[in-house]
Amino acid sequence: MQFKASDISLLLNGTVEGDPSVVVSRLAKIEEGTAGSLSFLANPKYEHFLYTTDSSVVIVNNEQVLTAPVKATLIRVENAYSAFTALLNQYSAIRLNKSGVEQPSFVHESATIGKNAYIGAFAYIGQGVTMGDNCKIYPNAYIADNVTLGNNVTLFPGVAIYFDCVLGNNVTIHSGTIIGADGFGFAPNPDGSYTKIAQIGNVVIEDDVEIGSNTTVDRATMGSTVIRKGVKLDNLIQIAHNVEIGANTVIAAQSGISGSTKIGERVLMGGQVGVVGHITVANGTQVQAQSGVNKTLTEEGKKWMGSPVMKYADHMRSVVVTHRLPELERKVQELEKLIKELTANKEA
Amino acid sequence: MQFKASDISLLLNGTVEGDPSVVVSRLAKIEEGTAGSLSFLANPKYEHFLYTTDSSVVIVNNEQVLTAPVKATLIRVENAYSAFTALLNQYSAIRLNKSGVEQPSFVHESATIGKNAYIGAFAYIGQGVTMGDNCKIYPNAYIADNVTLGNNVTLFPGVAIYFDCVLGNNVTIHSGTIIGADGFGFAPNPDGSYTKIAQIGNVVIEDDVEIGSNTTVDRATMGSTVIRKGVKLDNLIQIAHNVEIGANTVIAAQSGISGSTKIGERVLMGGQVGVVGHITVANGTQVQAQSGVNKTLTEEGKKWMGSPVMKYADHMRSVVVTHRLPELERKVQELEKLIKELTANKEA
Amino acid sequence: MQFKASDISLLLNGTVEGDPSVVVSRLAKIEEGTAGSLSFLANPKYEHFLYTTDSSVVIVNNEQVLTAPVKATLIRVENAYSAFTALLNQYSAIRLNKSGVEQPSFVHESATIGKNAYIGAFAYIGQGVTMGDNCKIYPNAYIADNVTLGNNVTLFPGVAIYFDCVLGNNVTIHSGTIIGADGFGFAPNPDGSYTKIAQIGNVVIEDDVEIGSNTTVDRATMGSTVIRKGVKLDNLIQIAHNVEIGANTVIAAQSGISGSTKIGERVLMGGQVGVVGHITVANGTQVQAQSGVNKTLTEEGKKWMGSPVMKYADHMRSVVVTHRLPELERKVQELEKLIKELTANKEA
Repeated sequence: MQFKASDISLLLNGTVEGDPSVVVSRLAKIEEGTAGSLSFLANPKYEHFLYTTDSSVVIVNNEQVLTAPVKATLIRVENAYSAFTALLNQYSAIRLNKSGVEQPSFVHESATIGKNAYIGAFAYIGQGVTMGDNCKIYPNAYIADNVTLGNNVTLFPGVAIYFDCVLGNNVTIHSGTIIGADGFGFAPNPDGSYTKIAQIGNVVIEDDVEIGSNTTVDRATMGSTVIRKGVKLDNLIQIAHNVEIGANTVIAAQSGISGSTKIGERVLMGGQVGVVGHITVANGTQVQAQSGVNKTLTEEGKKWMGSPVMKYADHMRSVVVTHRLPELERKVQELEKLIKELTANKEA
Repeated sequence: MQFKASDISLLLNGTVEGDPSVVVSRLAKIEEGTAGSLSFLANPKYEHFLYTTDSSVVIVNNEQVLTAPVKATLIRVENAYSAFTALLNQYSAIRLNKSGVEQPSFVHESATIGKNAYIGAFAYIGQGVTMGDNCKIYPNAYIADNVTLGNNVTLFPGVAIYFDCVLGNNVTIHSGTIIGADGFGFAPNPDGSYTKIAQIGNVVIEDDVEIGSNTTVDRATMGSTVIRKGVKLDNLIQIAHNVEIGANTVIAAQSGISGSTKIGERVLMGGQVGVVGHITVANGTQVQAQSGVNKTLTEEGKKWMGSPVMKYADHMRSVVVTHRLPELERKVQELEKLIKELTANKEA
Repeated sequence: MQFKASDISLLLNGTVEGDPSVVVSRLAKIEEGTAGSLSFLANPKYEHFLYTTDSSVVIVNNEQVLTAPVKATLIRVENAYSAFTALLNQYSAIRLNKSGVEQPSFVHESATIGKNAYIGAFAYIGQGVTMGDNCKIYPNAYIADNVTLGNNVTLFPGVAIYFDCVLGNNVTIHSGTIIGADGFGFAPNPDGSYTKIAQIGNVVIEDDVEIGSNTTVDRATMGSTVIRKGVKLDNLIQIAHNVEIGANTVIAAQSGISGSTKIGERVLMGGQVGVVGHITVANGTQVQAQSGVNKTLTEEGKKWMGSPVMKYADHMRSVVVTHRLPELERKVQELEKLIKELTANKEA
């Protein structure tokens, strides 16, 4: 795809400064741009790149003052950052603008498919499935019986949704993520073996949720594992049975939430965090990467770190002292010696 | 699916108390039930819910005494918990009661398929595969050449079994799990690059094993990676080449076992545990979540925690002191000061 | 597959000692061999197995001296280890020697497929894809639009490569690994919700890279996430957007690298390591399992451990003292008591 500076300016309602006929074919950061790149400048910290960039076109704010000659064609707009983001989104939408039904695919005769669907080759849509409008089911994705999808749901290749699960509107799930597999529940027998506890609940994913690749969200034993509106989950995350993740919570890659735990709203969790089962984490909690949350956190908006977690400031202090531990031990040994001498002297 | 209270009572050999014609369509916990739910009460701790539940039908023990009016229809049975579990299992079996061969699927002409198989659309069954009876191969699952499956094996969508692997009877593997990919073996070259060490062994999974979603079990370099009878593995677990997991061992999500390590029988491992390679873990060992096992554990039935692991009680003590570390450091500084004063006084 | 000792000897340019007509059908370690196994002896430490092994044929070095009777047929060669490795590779190559196009598969009419390709059933090859020679695309693998593959690329079942990604020559990717899914980028809104930041870059994987199962490599926001020549990634690893992994770096299972971090060349990383975003890790760095790298590491070739990381020796010292912490605390309490007594005595 190629665009002239003048076309982009028209699209963004901007004004061109320089050659309006110069052509760009890709988007790039201003410091990485080459001939044919379109970049933007919003942060004054990066202004010096404006005078050195090889990008052919740069979007700048209307009020941008130039303090040196600029090689690139400029497009002046009211808000350079928003304008560039709008272009990013448009570019992305074009790349993902799939529609139609590819063959062979498997759509059960009882399934209800909304308007303007994309169903990739080797996608599987089971008995009694209901899909809203504008859904995109990529190749090799699997939707089991009686699953319900809202409008504008995108399932990338290899996603599997087990039976009875419910997804809201504008849900995006990346490749290899598994929704609704059995929770991990087994009852011990006297002989050391285990009997499976049937997992007959489901997973409910509300509107505007995005989930990364190869994440697993297990179905509830009974009832529902719930991912509330606006939640963003990264790759390779484990969400166990009967967990609830509150609205607009964001969890980074490789974290795991154990069974029946309830994570609040607007929680931020770093990567590789572990959370034990059957606890509650307050709204607005922040948990640093690699932490282990082993207890209910009731105060809202606090920052935690460590395994087991401590308040962030306490943990940082503890880490600093831990790093000084060998020194601390030496000091104690010296003190012991000194006191022994003092005691000896006194007794002498 | 809808059932009348009287039908369920008949099935469970129970007696109805209340309206036998009331209809239920789902199973729910007594505290979460709504009109149309079937619940149970076994634990006296939950008895108060019996008088407030909105569930339409509740299964109770024969000897249950009522201390207040009950809105729900009751079904009295000898053991309410077992009766409810039996219903759970029956419900689950119905939901997963697939059979027949969907098209298009790929079954190599040389494969041997047992009786009553389910082969989903886009499932792949390679050359020389042998499958027992009652196997369920869901859509997009892949079984490579010369794989052997016992009876009652279920592979959910997207499972991949590499060539030459062997699965016993009653093995269930959830979506996205990969069995028998190459072990991670590379020999360093003088120029800093690596040469691959061919991985020509296989994976052997014994009877009654269940494995969660997106777990990986690598094939042995030579010989077999072995998952013994009754093992339960959760989601996103890594089992490296030539590992052996002992019978009835249970491992929680996101744990990883490094190459050639031998885990004993009836071991319980929490989530996000790491175990180094080439060690042995004794029967009945318990390892807490997020621990790092860096050495052979020879005593049976002990509990370990931390990274590197310590005995559980020692670790807990160590954690407590770690949390008091800044305080401990302050104390040592005070002692230093006091001793300096004492020494100064003495010398004065 | 069955081979006579004499055939193998011919292949390896060796000399047979014992029955040349004995037949083997598998490769095994000398200590695990059974009748029908082919083994080797290179390490003098294992020589005693030569006299007790049940393997039918053992490859030994020309200069191997026998100090007891040997039951197995021997094949003497110049370098037993290399000879056996060559056999392993040959065996492996035969097991993976797929070719031809299985049906049904989906190959877009605009795709360019090189010579001698294997395209498994239910594999998907999108619009504008370019593949070099000798590529193997296993069943249920997915290659999105405009992806470029070099020669000798193998994608195992269920691998998904998103649009615009570029793979070099001799790249092997195991089952369930996802290349080029969206990076995890969301901008917070005043109401607590998030707006997705479009991820329009790609992933570039250079020559001779091998990636394990169920690993995720996210596409760049803009520009490329880059995996340099010769890198080896294990299973269940997370590589975030805009990361660069330097040539010949090796990363063990379940590790995660956060966004925009640059890992140097010949780095060795253990399992379950986490690395924060926007930092640089020097060439030749070694990071122990379960560590947390929270800062740029500038010195080349150093060994690190802990979370947060410390130099390896410092960490080991710190761990030792941590294990002695309860004892250290007791000592400090005793010192406090002693000093109190000393002070009391002095004042008395």
